Amino acid sequence: MYDELKKRVYEANMLLPKHELVTFTWGNASEIDRENNVVAIKPSGVEYDKLKPAHIVVLDLDSGGIVDGDLNPSSDTPTHLELYKRFPNIGGVVHTHSSCGTAWAQAGRAIPPYGTTHADYFYGEIPCTRPLDEQEVKSAYELNTGKVIADTFEKNGIDPAAVPGVLVSNHAPFSWGVDARDAVHNAVVLEEVAKMAFMCELIDPQIKLMPEYVLNKHYLRKHGKDAYYGQNGKI
Amino acid sequence: MYDELKKRVYEANMLLPKHELVTFTWGNASEIDRENNVVAIKPSGVEYDKLKPAHIVVLDLDSGGIVDGDLNPSSDTPTHLELYKRFPNIGGVVHTHSSCGTAWAQAGRAIPPYGTTHADYFYGEIPCTRPLDEQEVKSAYELNTGKVIADTFEKNGIDPAAVPGVLVSNHAPFSWGVDARDAVHNAVVLEEVAKMAFMCELIDPQIKLMPEYVLNKHYLRKHGKDAYYGQNGKI
Amino acid sequence: MYDELKKRVYEANMLLPKHELVTFTWGNASEIDRENNVVAIKPSGVEYDKLKPAHIVVLDLDSGGIVDGDLNPSSDTPTHLELYKRFPNIGGVVHTHSSCGTAWAQAGRAIPPYGTTHADYFYGEIPCTRPLDEQEVKSAYELNTGKVIADTFEKNGIDPAAVPGVLVSNHAPFSWGVDARDAVHNAVVLEEVAKMAFMCELIDPQIKLMPEYVLNKHYLRKHGKDAYYGQNGKI
Amino acid sequence: MYDELKKRVYEANMLLPKHELVTFTWGNASEIDRENNVVAIKPSGVEYDKLKPAHIVVLDLDSGGIVDGDLNPSSDTPTHLELYKRFPNIGGVVHTHSSCGTAWAQAGRAIPPYGTTHADYFYGEIPCTRPLDEQEVKSAYELNTGKVIADTFEKNGIDPAAVPGVLVSNHAPFSWGVDARDAVHNAVVLEEVAKMAFMCELIDPQIKLMPEYVLNKHYLRKHGKDAYYGQNGKI
Repeated sequence: MYDELKKRVYEANMLLPKHELVTFTWGNASEIDRENNVVAIKPSGVEYDKLKPAHIVVLDLDSGGIVDGDLNPSSDTPTHLELYKRFPNIGGVVHTHSSCGTAWAQAGRAIPPYGTTHADYFYGEIPCTRPLDEQEVKSAYELNTGKVIADTFEKNGIDPAAVPGVLVSNHAPFSWGVDARDAVHNAVVLEEVAKMAFMCELIDPQIKLMPEYVLNKHYLRKHGKDAYYGQNGKI
Repeated sequence: MYDELKKRVYEANMLLPKHELVTFTWGNASEIDRENNVVAIKPSGVEYDKLKPAHIVVLDLDSGGIVDGDLNPSSDTPTHLELYKRFPNIGGVVHTHSSCGTAWAQAGRAIPPYGTTHADYFYGEIPCTRPLDEQEVKSAYELNTGKVIADTFEKNGIDPAAVPGVLVSNHAPFSWGVDARDAVHNAVVLEEVAKMAFMCELIDPQIKLMPEYVLNKHYLRKHGKDAYYGQNGKI
Repeated sequence: MYDELKKRVYEANMLLPKHELVTFTWGNASEIDRENNVVAIKPSGVEYDKLKPAHIVVLDLDSGGIVDGDLNPSSDTPTHLELYKRFPNIGGVVHTHSSCGTAWAQAGRAIPPYGTTHADYFYGEIPCTRPLDEQEVKSAYELNTGKVIADTFEKNGIDPAAVPGVLVSNHAPFSWGVDARDAVHNAVVLEEVAKMAFMCELIDPQIKLMPEYVLNKHYLRKHGKDAYYGQNGKI
Repeated sequence: MYDELKKRVYEANMLLPKHELVTFTWGNASEIDRENNVVAIKPSGVEYDKLKPAHIVVLDLDSGGIVDGDLNPSSDTPTHLELYKRFPNIGGVVHTHSSCGTAWAQAGRAIPPYGTTHADYFYGEIPCTRPLDEQEVKSAYELNTGKVIADTFEKNGIDPAAVPGVLVSNHAPFSWGVDARDAVHNAVVLEEVAKMAFMCELIDPQIKLMPEYVLNKHYLRKHGKDAYYGQNGKI
């Protein structure tokens, strides 16, 4: 019944090593079927070169119970589920420990918007969550990670559709998108943007943010009703 | 009619991922046929592994109207066209978001000539434009990007044939050459030079520019009437 | 008699160039057969693309004498043997000059735990040994390298099973694990963690260590009796 | 007559792109046949994927005249010839613009010996020449580059056999060895050592040189009459 969904999630997961975003089994991608209220996700700790579509685990969004599959789902599953609940317009979630994004997360700093590469995909800084406190880590850690991410967006009035990624303090990036493949795409961009921001702060320690009007221009030429980038279905 | 031109532009575009200058669909290469007053350019937002010679769009230089092709041209087309108009001796233009060049552009700094690798291709610093102002961004943004690049060269008396590349502030590099392939070549060099300059400023924060006479020597042993590098048609 | 052991050690050694941890012949992996009290190790100075399982040298743990094989064992053999003697629960040892780990070793600094990638594998900082003194270097250098590593763990009460790697001052990393393959795995993680820590100190020079409770959580969700990461034999 | 020599020089040149030491046609390797007093070197500006053994140019060491071959020799030929004349025990020379080595050369700094990776191949710092003066650059530039390199070694009493590489100020590295292949080997090590030294100065800006006795130990366990690294002809 969920063969198509599992295949798509399998393929999105396989893009992670292809784009050099993961080492060993680190990282996972999921996708939600909102009609059936289920989420398909990578199994925990399975190596990418052994992963098959049949290994993908399908879970009920509300209970977290396994609907289809024999393996344990990713240990980060509660984070994914919480994000699907709190961000009702997203369709896919990705978690990686990509090198540069993780370095920013470990430093506990948001990635400032310094250029158009950032603005083409992220409509403002890529925020970094507050650190989880001891209680949040000791019980329901992965669920609380999802809560802290969602709270970061709510409290700061950030639209998760316009800023499709986050850094979890002391941990690593999460990204999302309209489906699992799109979430991978945003994970690749986040890593590239993190690398460029790392270098440009060393090139000019007094660097300022890009002008707001350039940020607007670049984001809006790719997104929204007046977008004019791409083929709009011609190909 | 433009099959040869389209093939050359296709091949130049395919060199961008080969040299790891582009991520996803970022970046584009074009070439001008000055006899017929037309420019061939990559279509907007088409992935490189799906790109075919037939996808290349041919435009009239003056009107920007499509002469040949079914797809939308790159959203950066007005920048390319402006450069061909203002720099009458160039034959190809390339735009990328290559990591190190983009980091310098985001920092708003020209790349200083620190060594012979730079001098072999760029006869002086690789300039960075001033930031576009709000009006320039809000209307005819891509055209104004081309104007600001050309103005940078004119006002500073820089010969675009001797300095075949530029950084657009808060954005990324553009490069050019005698044809599309040569423009790609200069894009590769710009990225490598940007990487080396990034590192050598960290190795010695008090670093000075290379001596003018070394810059002259290296540029002129590869360019101009007394050049003695290469085979001069022997192979 | 030791064909299986030699094949495993051969395969672990071949993972080192695959993971880009070694240049030329630098680096070596070994594994111990505790029942037979022998250690199998890479021969000295043999290039990886010429290495065969039959080249692996098998040595007596106590005497260091060759039990099986025609070639000279790695010049680092006495370090490996000392680690097997002093750390009775390890089964494999790896030595590389991987770029980032070696940079930290050359700087003489332990790698601080800044994030969950570190905590997933190393339960605390990755220590750096004191420099060997002149006498220790002049005679029995490789044996003394092993002694200084083991002393670093003993004197600081660090459990080598919980911190499966070390930096030798002015030299490079050693890592270990339950077998040779696991030791390679930890060498890969050490290099990635070294790279991230390098970047995050540049992103925030005032960076603080990760909270102890996050370190505990991540290490213990992958290790020990309450671990819940992976498939626990399901696949 | 020089087919074997040309084949060896061809193969050494092809190792340069394999080890990612060159971009486009940058870089060249040569080897001397001291019995016949001739040097074989890469032709100028020929792309590596078009290079063939027959393209290699053979020159008389004293006159620099072409003994065999139809193409122009590398424009750096006078530097190679001068090194063979001044360093009578070397058999191969390599020049690259490898990224990290070039960054140090552009900064005008010698690479300090910080660790055993350096000491295994370079018995002391890798020196950086003084800048060439205006007259030296304006006439016989490539010859003077060779002279300045050799002078750097002579004046500082450095043995070119023990320190098989150098940085030319504002330019890039040269390396050498017993033959062309060995010179490539040393070019790879120089680049790796340059990368590690770059990183470790950022990890600890107060970093000190490695102890002299560790430098001695590592260099001498691989070189000289008491060397005990490798197979000594067993394989």
